[in-house]
Amino acid sequence: MMKLYDSPLSGNCHKVRLLMSLLDLEYESVPINMAEMAHKTPDYVAINPLGQVPVLDDDGEVIRDSQAILVYLAAKFGDGRWLPKDDPYALGHVSEWLSFSANEMSHGCAASRALVLFNRDGDLEGARTLARKALGILDDHLAAREWLVGDAPTVADIANYVYAGLVHQGGINPHEFTNVSTWLGRVEALEGYIGMAALPAPK
Amino acid sequence: MMKLYDSPLSGNCHKVRLLMSLLDLEYESVPINMAEMAHKTPDYVAINPLGQVPVLDDDGEVIRDSQAILVYLAAKFGDGRWLPKDDPYALGHVSEWLSFSANEMSHGCAASRALVLFNRDGDLEGARTLARKALGILDDHLAAREWLVGDAPTVADIANYVYAGLVHQGGINPHEFTNVSTWLGRVEALEGYIGMAALPAPK
Repeated sequence: MMKLYDSPLSGNCHKVRLLMSLLDLEYESVPINMAEMAHKTPDYVAINPLGQVPVLDDDGEVIRDSQAILVYLAAKFGDGRWLPKDDPYALGHVSEWLSFSANEMSHGCAASRALVLFNRDGDLEGARTLARKALGILDDHLAAREWLVGDAPTVADIANYVYAGLVHQGGINPHEFTNVSTWLGRVEALEGYIGMAALPAPK
Repeated sequence: MMKLYDSPLSGNCHKVRLLMSLLDLEYESVPINMAEMAHKTPDYVAINPLGQVPVLDDDGEVIRDSQAILVYLAAKFGDGRWLPKDDPYALGHVSEWLSFSANEMSHGCAASRALVLFNRDGDLEGARTLARKALGILDDHLAAREWLVGDAPTVADIANYVYAGLVHQGGINPHEFTNVSTWLGRVEALEGYIGMAALPAPK
């Protein structure tokens, strides 16, 4: 059975959990306790030299990076959906949004959430500025379309959905971005959708 | 004919020029004068809302983001080489390194070069630390292999090659990373390889 090195509060892990659920795939979750720095131990860094979750182990085939895991799962189990690998133009557009997720969404939306939620040191206002810029680009793109690429959901939507849906945890009002909000709802209406676990109550 | 919105000193543009040359493709280069902020004009931002080069226009089909353009070109013109789109595991690994290029290489190697070369404001030592970490991960990965994925060059190599090959311009000694240096030479020995234009002489 597939094993997912996983952390409940990680949005990057949730991208994978969400696609697994949409594809109705079974897997075993291997919790990595990030509060105790389990992702930086020598054993874990041997699995992922970047010291990050998620990592997928599919019978010994090991893939790191949330975008790459989405591509792998869609290519292997997607049955022609989720990744338009035989249409160069659509595949190029999916790749645009995977880069956007790895860079702009990560350094904007994910970073501002992490700075607030985990009390990390860093430039919160800078991260929020990047987040608002990224959300504005997404919002404009979604003004006249239902999904990021083509007329059906792809891994591009899943890769960008999770941190776009968590921006309130970084102190950003998601309702400033109405097309993004509508698109979040569209993802949440997909058959097999699962949300993230609720945050633990503050102590 | 394909049009590439292009800038001679941009490593991201050079990724595309390099793959175009390796694939023996013809295109028209449309220079965007970044010193004069031509990439931030309303006309250009209408083409690429991120206000970045490169952008590829293939008979009206417009793709932004250097990684995405590499994927598009390989899928359309690669004739089964450069992008293993029918092997989920290899495609997942290529995607790992495309994310690495969009995030770690960009914020480390590309950023430290830009801070030095274009006198930009920013955290040069922070960028150099990220660059050395990224180069170390590449170096370890290349210890027992010739190419980043599988046994032939792919877009993963091209996406990471350019900024890895320019780290001296950001004040990093590339010879600290011997496997990376050997791999750079391997890319440079490919038939059709072209280097970047020389830097203009300092004034």
